[in-house]
Amino acid sequence: MKNNADFHLVIMAGGVGSRFWPMSRPENPKQFIDVLGVGRSLLQLTVDRFGSAFTPEHTWVVTSEKYADKVKEQLPDLPESNILLEPCMRNTTPCIAYVAWKIFQRYPNATMVVSPADHFVADVDKFRKSIAKGLEFVAGQPRVLTLGMTPTRPDTGYGYIQAVASADADVLHVSAFREKPTLDVAKGYLEQGGFYWNAGIFLWDVRTAMAAIRHFEPEIASVMDKIKPSLYTPEEQQTVSTLFPECKNISIDYAVMERLAGHNEKVDGRITSVFVLPASFGWSDLGTWGSLYAQLDKDLAGNAVVGDAEVSLVESWDCMVRTSGNVRFVIQGLQGFIVAEDNGTVLICKRDDEQRIKQFSATLKE
Amino acid sequence: MKNNADFHLVIMAGGVGSRFWPMSRPENPKQFIDVLGVGRSLLQLTVDRFGSAFTPEHTWVVTSEKYADKVKEQLPDLPESNILLEPCMRNTTPCIAYVAWKIFQRYPNATMVVSPADHFVADVDKFRKSIAKGLEFVAGQPRVLTLGMTPTRPDTGYGYIQAVASADADVLHVSAFREKPTLDVAKGYLEQGGFYWNAGIFLWDVRTAMAAIRHFEPEIASVMDKIKPSLYTPEEQQTVSTLFPECKNISIDYAVMERLAGHNEKVDGRITSVFVLPASFGWSDLGTWGSLYAQLDKDLAGNAVVGDAEVSLVESWDCMVRTSGNVRFVIQGLQGFIVAEDNGTVLICKRDDEQRIKQFSATLKE
Repeated sequence: MKNNADFHLVIMAGGVGSRFWPMSRPENPKQFIDVLGVGRSLLQLTVDRFGSAFTPEHTWVVTSEKYADKVKEQLPDLPESNILLEPCMRNTTPCIAYVAWKIFQRYPNATMVVSPADHFVADVDKFRKSIAKGLEFVAGQPRVLTLGMTPTRPDTGYGYIQAVASADADVLHVSAFREKPTLDVAKGYLEQGGFYWNAGIFLWDVRTAMAAIRHFEPEIASVMDKIKPSLYTPEEQQTVSTLFPECKNISIDYAVMERLAGHNEKVDGRITSVFVLPASFGWSDLGTWGSLYAQLDKDLAGNAVVGDAEVSLVESWDCMVRTSGNVRFVIQGLQGFIVAEDNGTVLICKRDDEQRIKQFSATLKE
Repeated sequence: MKNNADFHLVIMAGGVGSRFWPMSRPENPKQFIDVLGVGRSLLQLTVDRFGSAFTPEHTWVVTSEKYADKVKEQLPDLPESNILLEPCMRNTTPCIAYVAWKIFQRYPNATMVVSPADHFVADVDKFRKSIAKGLEFVAGQPRVLTLGMTPTRPDTGYGYIQAVASADADVLHVSAFREKPTLDVAKGYLEQGGFYWNAGIFLWDVRTAMAAIRHFEPEIASVMDKIKPSLYTPEEQQTVSTLFPECKNISIDYAVMERLAGHNEKVDGRITSVFVLPASFGWSDLGTWGSLYAQLDKDLAGNAVVGDAEVSLVESWDCMVRTSGNVRFVIQGLQGFIVAEDNGTVLICKRDDEQRIKQFSATLKE
């Protein structure tokens, strides 16, 4: 993919990652952490992954006000006006509306890929090919394109996209978005075929994005219209801080994607549809310790260790150990456990119970 | 027991406590640590336990040169000349010889109780009564008296004293010392009766001690005779540093006790015997995490937690958790484990495998 003046990368980096406690905490969530132990944070790895096709000027990060310094520190090449700061969490629709309005002001022909900041991709070349294909598919078109991962197991931690063939051989029509299923339902999806994991990455033309938001959530569009005169001025942040909290709290999936699934809708005079591009570049949302464990190299006993501190595992199997560098471990006799240390807090829990980590962490006073 | 000018307390505080890793390490072994979480180290608790019957002037601590400052800091009332420093570890016979020779020089009529620095006693009143009884029994007599704990379980971690009745109703003759037995053998001891745990506490007149050492280990006595002119002079430490390493490495049990068991021996012209005073004041050598666990209060799930840091146990049973105060823990799903942290090192291992902790700790580079 060539460096195209119309292609823009939008990274949503405002999450708090509570299921990765104690490594990930509200004051330092996982997108800013070197979760994989490779010397780069997940945010940095996300920017790296999209590659040189997106210049710093065409890369936008939307995050919380309190993470502004972290983003500047980790992405020093990014122009400061490309870091958009939300005064409060209002889910993804206001977030994407803000960045769409801002990009449109300077780049009215922009096509955007919107990506989470904290996911994992194994095959970066394949990934870039999918992104390039997707951008071509949506540029200048009334189309929303999601990336759908070909499922390799009946995972109950992901949402699924149900798809049917379209005119384009590589791209499918989305007939429905399905919430995280039970195991039986997920097994049924895999048997039936035509289901994909929703990777939370989607691509659309900035005009399509704005039109869709105005069509489905006019009140959010109205707030952005009020913010618009301040964009790229010294008053922008103050204006956003005042007006942004008025926005409805709603995800882009719920506000736009699901409303477009299974039919065509006339948006701003154009028939608009949602598509899915199936892909299999080895993806994980790194939403839990288990999904990190799945991506890491394991020793012969099935233990994955990441972090700077010394860790010795004796008679232990299938464990996920993560250190921050300050505390070293000798672990004997554990099977299928998570042992994670950060900033002087150690979590020891069963991998099978990782969905309850928030409950476990709540037992500390803090 | 009244403060008796002839009664002296000797505390052996030179051990390294490797089975309590990582809390106990050569640079800070367990006698200097507040193992029980009560605000006093085991050494301090040992001195407390003997009570005011032993003045600071009649209390002697033998330890390694490298622990001199710790002893001074923890027992500030102790005269400096009452802290005897070994230049190297030579087991208990040279240790006791050194302190006996030194006490004798100033207190030729002294009677000594020799005690480890790192044991636990539940009932201090009972303990003091046993000590008072024992001191009376050996004062001025050619007798060695050991304290024998009435066994409450077939413990395989202790040595046993086999005894038969003597003329004194409370005190028995020792017929044999038995090494740590197998479980079957230990069960046999309890069925048979007349067996006691060797608590490592023994009492004797200083003249008897010197005579016995000279009788059984004349070379060690000879080294002490050479050290003698320097005692209580500025040259003492230098002389000890030079001559003490010449001593044979041998325990007092092996050098004297076992050789006296089962018969009478004429030592320095007097028929000398070894006796045992049965006692049941709730004793543990705190030799392992398990023995500490046994002494601590447990919550309803059988977990014992000691230390200053916050520890939250969820769905965990029969665990022994010890923190140093710097690292806090959330522990879920562990049953029968030791979790111990000290100085940035965490040990997680099965309680059943505590005898192998030295092996586990050796897997770290350090």
